[in-house]
Amino acid sequence: MDMTMVACCQLAPVFGDPAANRELAAAAVTGAADRGASVVVLPELVSSGYVFRSRAEAAASAEAADGPTVTGWARLAAEHQIVIVGGFCETAGGELYNSAALVDSGGLRCVYRKAHLWDEESLWFTPGSAAPPVVATRLGRIAVMICYDLEFPEWVRLPALDGAQLLCAPTNWPAFLQADAAVNRMFIAACDRTGAERGVDWVAGSVIVDPDGWPLAEATGADGPVTITAECQLDLALDKATGPRNDVHADRRPGLYRRVADPGNSGPG
Amino acid sequence: MDMTMVACCQLAPVFGDPAANRELAAAAVTGAADRGASVVVLPELVSSGYVFRSRAEAAASAEAADGPTVTGWARLAAEHQIVIVGGFCETAGGELYNSAALVDSGGLRCVYRKAHLWDEESLWFTPGSAAPPVVATRLGRIAVMICYDLEFPEWVRLPALDGAQLLCAPTNWPAFLQADAAVNRMFIAACDRTGAERGVDWVAGSVIVDPDGWPLAEATGADGPVTITAECQLDLALDKATGPRNDVHADRRPGLYRRVADPGNSGPG
Repeated sequence: MDMTMVACCQLAPVFGDPAANRELAAAAVTGAADRGASVVVLPELVSSGYVFRSRAEAAASAEAADGPTVTGWARLAAEHQIVIVGGFCETAGGELYNSAALVDSGGLRCVYRKAHLWDEESLWFTPGSAAPPVVATRLGRIAVMICYDLEFPEWVRLPALDGAQLLCAPTNWPAFLQADAAVNRMFIAACDRTGAERGVDWVAGSVIVDPDGWPLAEATGADGPVTITAECQLDLALDKATGPRNDVHADRRPGLYRRVADPGNSGPG
Repeated sequence: MDMTMVACCQLAPVFGDPAANRELAAAAVTGAADRGASVVVLPELVSSGYVFRSRAEAAASAEAADGPTVTGWARLAAEHQIVIVGGFCETAGGELYNSAALVDSGGLRCVYRKAHLWDEESLWFTPGSAAPPVVATRLGRIAVMICYDLEFPEWVRLPALDGAQLLCAPTNWPAFLQADAAVNRMFIAACDRTGAERGVDWVAGSVIVDPDGWPLAEATGADGPVTITAECQLDLALDKATGPRNDVHADRRPGLYRRVADPGNSGPG
């Protein structure tokens, strides 16, 4: 079966300087593509940096999904015939979103808006309300979510049940990916950032995990920006069986998982 | 705040000999209580062993919930004023279940029947269909589930949302407890078994994890039966906040987690 080289470019974005970050990301993407990567994941909010102190600061670095950052990624994707997933500070309809775009040689395929906001993010960003998209690419089905979203097992389950083989997660802090990957038998590539920003340090823990939960590549201990890569046999994620009688998805019993207190689970409303 | 010593007695049950296993478990429970444990967790199917080759074999080692194994645990619980959670092979209404009982000084408090069956278990056991119970004990709220159940994030979520401070899991293979504990901010004590049985070896990986996902005690590498213990400040599990603006339960967005394909999530039926 085909192998797909997945890369995470763990970068240190320049706060509040989208033009500089476009160059930074483009150089990293090109480097990863030159090494043979077919999927390149960039960190959360790599277009803008993270540590905003006001909504105005976030707005100053925000771009539309057809702005120069995502358009530039689409151009790179077409040039190298690759898939790029990256986080950017999005403005749309007067709202700001902590978003991620997936682009491939066909251009922009989806924009995902982070649904679970962390800490001060809720002061400037509007949470998204659409499920994580699963995009059929020439490499397989690739899903997108962002950082804190990964800590909601229900959220990770949705793209897994929709057939995602690889979940790409721009993040500023990777958490429980090994469990997320193994209980869903799908690959996960989480691209963390690095570099101190306004006194905040990051774990710098980019990781690519296989459907057994095994880390194929980790950035732990890397000093400064780094790209990690792993060869992934994405077709493995199509098989959810863990033995002759078990299958991590077929063994689910969704009829038992409802909870009366959950509005979304108690009826069609 | 009060500390509660939790113990996992990682034992090697004698296959098909409930009487011998009652003695084995009683000695381990007494030893743990003598060391100061207030909650003692025993492995999955500690009454019977695990590697059945026929339903008849499972039936031969099965007992009712008011049989000698659970009654014996209740007597020990009263004697030492402790909580015991242990797995046993249950017979009820002509069905066999892979069950766990929680007993305290008040006697039998609940029987939980494993809802997600692993491998050949489905050949002899009927899956339970009741949610994991959460029992209000004098030490705090304690929940029960069994082994493979732990790999269904939706299932672990239910007792966590119902206020469980400690999840006790008799298991024959602990898996992703650190993530389960941290994403729900609750203590988890998983009691694995040890000893080869009919050519099958076990991981022997009992572990007690705190609400940050940190392992407080692990049996990894232990040779033969062992009891691990940890002092747990169970009240920590009442606070789901992870920062001034975040709370692992309040941040859930259950209205978004529905999936049309899930029968149980699409309507009240």
